[in-house]
Amino acid sequence: MRSQVADDIDAVLKEVAFNADGLVAAIAQQHDTGEVLMMAWMNAEALAETLATRRVCYFSRSRGKLWRKGESSGQTQRLVDLRLDCDGDALLLLVDQTGVACHTGRRSCFYRAARPEGLVEIAAPEVSPDALYRS
Amino acid sequence: MRSQVADDIDAVLKEVAFNADGLVAAIAQQHDTGEVLMMAWMNAEALAETLATRRVCYFSRSRGKLWRKGESSGQTQRLVDLRLDCDGDALLLLVDQTGVACHTGRRSCFYRAARPEGLVEIAAPEVSPDALYRS
Repeated sequence: MRSQVADDIDAVLKEVAFNADGLVAAIAQQHDTGEVLMMAWMNAEALAETLATRRVCYFSRSRGKLWRKGESSGQTQRLVDLRLDCDGDALLLLVDQTGVACHTGRRSCFYRAARPEGLVEIAAPEVSPDALYRS
Repeated sequence: MRSQVADDIDAVLKEVAFNADGLVAAIAQQHDTGEVLMMAWMNAEALAETLATRRVCYFSRSRGKLWRKGESSGQTQRLVDLRLDCDGDALLLLVDQTGVACHTGRRSCFYRAARPEGLVEIAAPEVSPDALYRS
């Protein structure tokens, strides 16, 4: 007999319009402040794991495998709520971000703003990337 | 002689990592409330027009042409700020949304939530889609 959780995950998965590469865009937003932290991609396996564990897991297109956010940096994302858009090709993840989301050590990946004088960095690193990925 | 605005737009465009289809993902967020409204796509022309006019213009993948948000519904988006992520393949648009962002008449496209009982609608339409697209 399948578990209730597995049935619920299947109910979500069948509403997702994965693209030709089997991926769906996922936007991570800090649940309480509303800050948009990053955008990445999920395949069905990453989405199912995220819903089952409530720890956010993406699919890394560059590495071609599951990317358990924070597995090397410790900067994990706890899933608070998951939303699906009207045509099913984008996910909004409301998360509780531990530390910083960006590999540059900044809280959000969206730290460059288009201003009249050109692209401007509007946030500084909170931690050193070297410290994040120290082995 | 090129205008300063055109030079600034070029400075942004050359930092964007458009995908194989010439598109970049664009997330629209209401600038003051933080609500994530929708995700769509831009090509270089749509992005340049958005920066020049401060009215958000996407590229419709289904129609294969520029999609000036609100051109048929009146539900326009005024650009307040535009952010680029660390690897240049996603944009965050801080906008002032007139009316509703979603073609279903809801404020946000992300109105379905994955809950233990399955997908649940967490927002009702604020206006009728028929009223939005009345000719």
